[in-house]
Amino acid sequence: MVVRIIYTRHAESLWNPIGRYQGRLDPELSERGHKQAERLAKALKKYNPVAIYSSPLKRTYMTAEYISKELNLPININEDIIEIDHGDWSGMLVKEVREKYPDMFHDWLYHPETVKFPNGESLHDVYERVKKFQEDMLKKHDGQTIVAVSHTVPIRASFVSGLNIPLEKFWSFGCDNASYSILDFDHIRPILYKLNNTYFLEELFVPALDAL
Amino acid sequence: MVVRIIYTRHAESLWNPIGRYQGRLDPELSERGHKQAERLAKALKKYNPVAIYSSPLKRTYMTAEYISKELNLPININEDIIEIDHGDWSGMLVKEVREKYPDMFHDWLYHPETVKFPNGESLHDVYERVKKFQEDMLKKHDGQTIVAVSHTVPIRASFVSGLNIPLEKFWSFGCDNASYSILDFDHIRPILYKLNNTYFLEELFVPALDAL
Repeated sequence: MVVRIIYTRHAESLWNPIGRYQGRLDPELSERGHKQAERLAKALKKYNPVAIYSSPLKRTYMTAEYISKELNLPININEDIIEIDHGDWSGMLVKEVREKYPDMFHDWLYHPETVKFPNGESLHDVYERVKKFQEDMLKKHDGQTIVAVSHTVPIRASFVSGLNIPLEKFWSFGCDNASYSILDFDHIRPILYKLNNTYFLEELFVPALDAL
Repeated sequence: MVVRIIYTRHAESLWNPIGRYQGRLDPELSERGHKQAERLAKALKKYNPVAIYSSPLKRTYMTAEYISKELNLPININEDIIEIDHGDWSGMLVKEVREKYPDMFHDWLYHPETVKFPNGESLHDVYERVKKFQEDMLKKHDGQTIVAVSHTVPIRASFVSGLNIPLEKFWSFGCDNASYSILDFDHIRPILYKLNNTYFLEELFVPALDAL
């Protein structure tokens, strides 16, 4: 194996339970999110990561702080793994989006690879930057394990990029709050080794809402 | 969600630790395998499956017996999820195969979709029968969760079939002994929800050998 990237989705934010699109908006972790992040940090310890990369938003950075404390490692802010810019959807509830943008909402669910959010990013934009992140990590961390604290859209796009499968498969992978997944870039091919591990959350587990 | 299939790979057999191709040959579980199967069975309980399907070979059936006892469900033998017929490789050690079939061994690692084992099956044969298994389960278990106790080749082929991605991605997913993975066939698309969960094995965990 050459490089192991452990993708962790941020713990529950204040907006996750109510189904509000966040994008670049910046809610903090919920009370449950704080507890989830603490358990996630402990669960990651056995993999002996050598570095932590985090999206700059509060929900990821606050999650990364628990990991940083547990692993005794600094946090490297990385803009390439920030959440998609949901543009005009940002701050809207799912039910509001369904009413105001019925066609785009349908496309986001069924053909996400075709969507560009008004005044925001396309899924393809995210794909390009998470691919760059993977390439940077392969150059920088040969033989090492790192943690990337990110969001549901860039993490799923990372699976698609890592496995080199069509972007239309974007929704085909589970990604709950405070989960971790492992992509191994080995000498033959990238392998999705673990996906959406959340066993350590126990009673704190909350399944992700669709389409967010 | 329409149908949830929990794919579990059999626990460790007597031949897994020494790297001997098994195919349709029929070694029993190792001592550690028995203990792994017991823990796997307990881990599956929370998903409330309504049925258990198992490949007829001893290593899967013996694993299924622990699950059957824990869940109080009968075992349905299913030939569609039996291991690939490795043909002339069956019973050989990895190092023997590397010497005797260097080109085919290379192809099995790098281009598995092109391989047909001499006097055995092709990966494509396995793909066709695990796809049939999925279709049968979708007809039979609408709204239900089931457990399929199978082997590394048919399980990986099931991910490829379920996600409808190219068969050349066959090796792109982790699959350790006594692991479980979850494919959700929901109303929009199939989703790989969990992959290669083995947390419950703790000190009994042994990583799978490559290429087996």
